[in-house]
Amino acid sequence: MSADGPPLHEALAPVTGLLGTFTGDGAGDYPTIDAFTYRETVTFGHVGKPFLAYTQRTVHPVTGAPMHAETGYLRVQPGGRTELVLAHPTGIVEVEEGSLTEEAGTTILTLVSTSLGRTATAKDVRSLRRRFVLDGDTLSYDLWMAHADTPETHHLAAVLHRTTG
Amino acid sequence: MSADGPPLHEALAPVTGLLGTFTGDGAGDYPTIDAFTYRETVTFGHVGKPFLAYTQRTVHPVTGAPMHAETGYLRVQPGGRTELVLAHPTGIVEVEEGSLTEEAGTTILTLVSTSLGRTATAKDVRSLRRRFVLDGDTLSYDLWMAHADTPETHHLAAVLHRTTG
Repeated sequence: MSADGPPLHEALAPVTGLLGTFTGDGAGDYPTIDAFTYRETVTFGHVGKPFLAYTQRTVHPVTGAPMHAETGYLRVQPGGRTELVLAHPTGIVEVEEGSLTEEAGTTILTLVSTSLGRTATAKDVRSLRRRFVLDGDTLSYDLWMAHADTPETHHLAAVLHRTTG
Repeated sequence: MSADGPPLHEALAPVTGLLGTFTGDGAGDYPTIDAFTYRETVTFGHVGKPFLAYTQRTVHPVTGAPMHAETGYLRVQPGGRTELVLAHPTGIVEVEEGSLTEEAGTTILTLVSTSLGRTATAKDVRSLRRRFVLDGDTLSYDLWMAHADTPETHHLAAVLHRTTG
């Protein structure tokens, strides 16, 4: 999971730039809630296999209280196909599939949920879509969500900067 | 995520004994594969909210090469109801639901999958069932799996011992 770890699996060559930790600030809104901001830390690691381990945590920008978290794996397939599997402490799991492209020196990862699982007590999230852009040491993303009667709507945006890697 | 962290959420009182790291040895078999053994590390942490963060990693007992991993959250609900949401780097996500009981000083957690999501390239896992038993500083578990044409069959068993907590 570090620079001292095993050699990188060759399938991860297109996502080498994601390895490390990124921190920064984000903002969220949605038709059914008040707008909010957050501070975020994202880490991508590897163990020598053809996937990245992904963890994400957000905290309140003033109090530092924990807000959201996610954890899972990004699987890199031939031809730029990518698969993201995640669990959320809100009782939701998701499978997202998409593609990885390079444009003018930036790496763009677009993913859309193909499966969502919910515990009996979880909120009624219907779909998620994400777009990550890595430009050097800056990782930004947008997230769109459909929830109950609300169709897919932009929900989150953040800009993070590499702090280790 | 540590003893120096935030106060434990009151909902976690029944699972306080899980907090920490456990290591030990396990064995797996299944009708379609050769039997195998593994060394495992499991960690349960918290951030002051009503769930535990769970990570699991196994390595080859001789070479130390990474084998399986899982990551997710255990949600504790009123009345002993529990919900486990996990992502696997094999491209699988799972929702398991069940109950937590105390019997003669041991804590028993039984969970069965209510939802399984798979990426396009994942293996055809159909269901999972787990039983964890915490007895003091010993955490043991069994896991049963249905896969493709194989009905639910015992797949994994391990006995782990607390190394930190």
